[in-house]
Amino acid sequence: MSYDPNNPFAKVLRKELPSIPLFEDDATLAIMDIMPQADGHVLVLTKEPAATLADMSAEGAARCMRTVHALLPAICRAVGAEAAVVSQFNGAAAGQSVPHVHFHIIPRSPGVALRRHASQRENPQTLAELAARIRAELDRG
Amino acid sequence: MSYDPNNPFAKVLRKELPSIPLFEDDATLAIMDIMPQADGHVLVLTKEPAATLADMSAEGAARCMRTVHALLPAICRAVGAEAAVVSQFNGAAAGQSVPHVHFHIIPRSPGVALRRHASQRENPQTLAELAARIRAELDRG
Repeated sequence: MSYDPNNPFAKVLRKELPSIPLFEDDATLAIMDIMPQADGHVLVLTKEPAATLADMSAEGAARCMRTVHALLPAICRAVGAEAAVVSQFNGAAAGQSVPHVHFHIIPRSPGVALRRHASQRENPQTLAELAARIRAELDRG
Repeated sequence: MSYDPNNPFAKVLRKELPSIPLFEDDATLAIMDIMPQADGHVLVLTKEPAATLADMSAEGAARCMRTVHALLPAICRAVGAEAAVVSQFNGAAAGQSVPHVHFHIIPRSPGVALRRHASQRENPQTLAELAARIRAELDRG
């Protein structure tokens, strides 16, 4: 998949589109998914201009996973979830909707079905409140 | 989730259960999934005694992703898939069936539905042939 520097996540990284950030380092940016499949659905974006895992460096991929690892427990505590899925899609046939490498962290609870992928925009106030709870859990460490 | 040292993947790592290995380093072991959701479904196991991402080190998680990154293109070439899902489940409510951290790499092709997770054992000869093709692509680099 060729890289489109005007994809939505590239624009988020350049701050040409708004986002609700949770964490940032030199390799990654973590933001709230605006069309979440569950409360606390977070995206970890690489800062490399890469559409798929195959297009990025091993170091960049590892840095994404370090950010996922750092965030996942805080996200689960913030939304009271006992479980979480981590997923990353490469190519349209795998369900990738934005051609910029990103990892999903999706909290799961027994008996709560996931909403459909990228189907419905969440209320911005709800997202901001969830983000504040996640940041508080990150600060608690 | 507490760690059970007698879970099936711990036994695979100790070679008390057989597996079809593809790649091994000091932090990870990659094997063929014996109940694949698609041809070329591969599992990357951490060597840490950890049930979920939250139970393992950041370094261990990053090393798993390095192995995923190294294998994914070879797997896709070996099975002629243009896309692939990477996923990792934490907790039963997230669909985790074996309580030892593992990453799924699942090739995807347009119009080919996934088989159900951990539902049907693949023919061992078929798995061995797929593994040989993946190893050949890994050697080709």
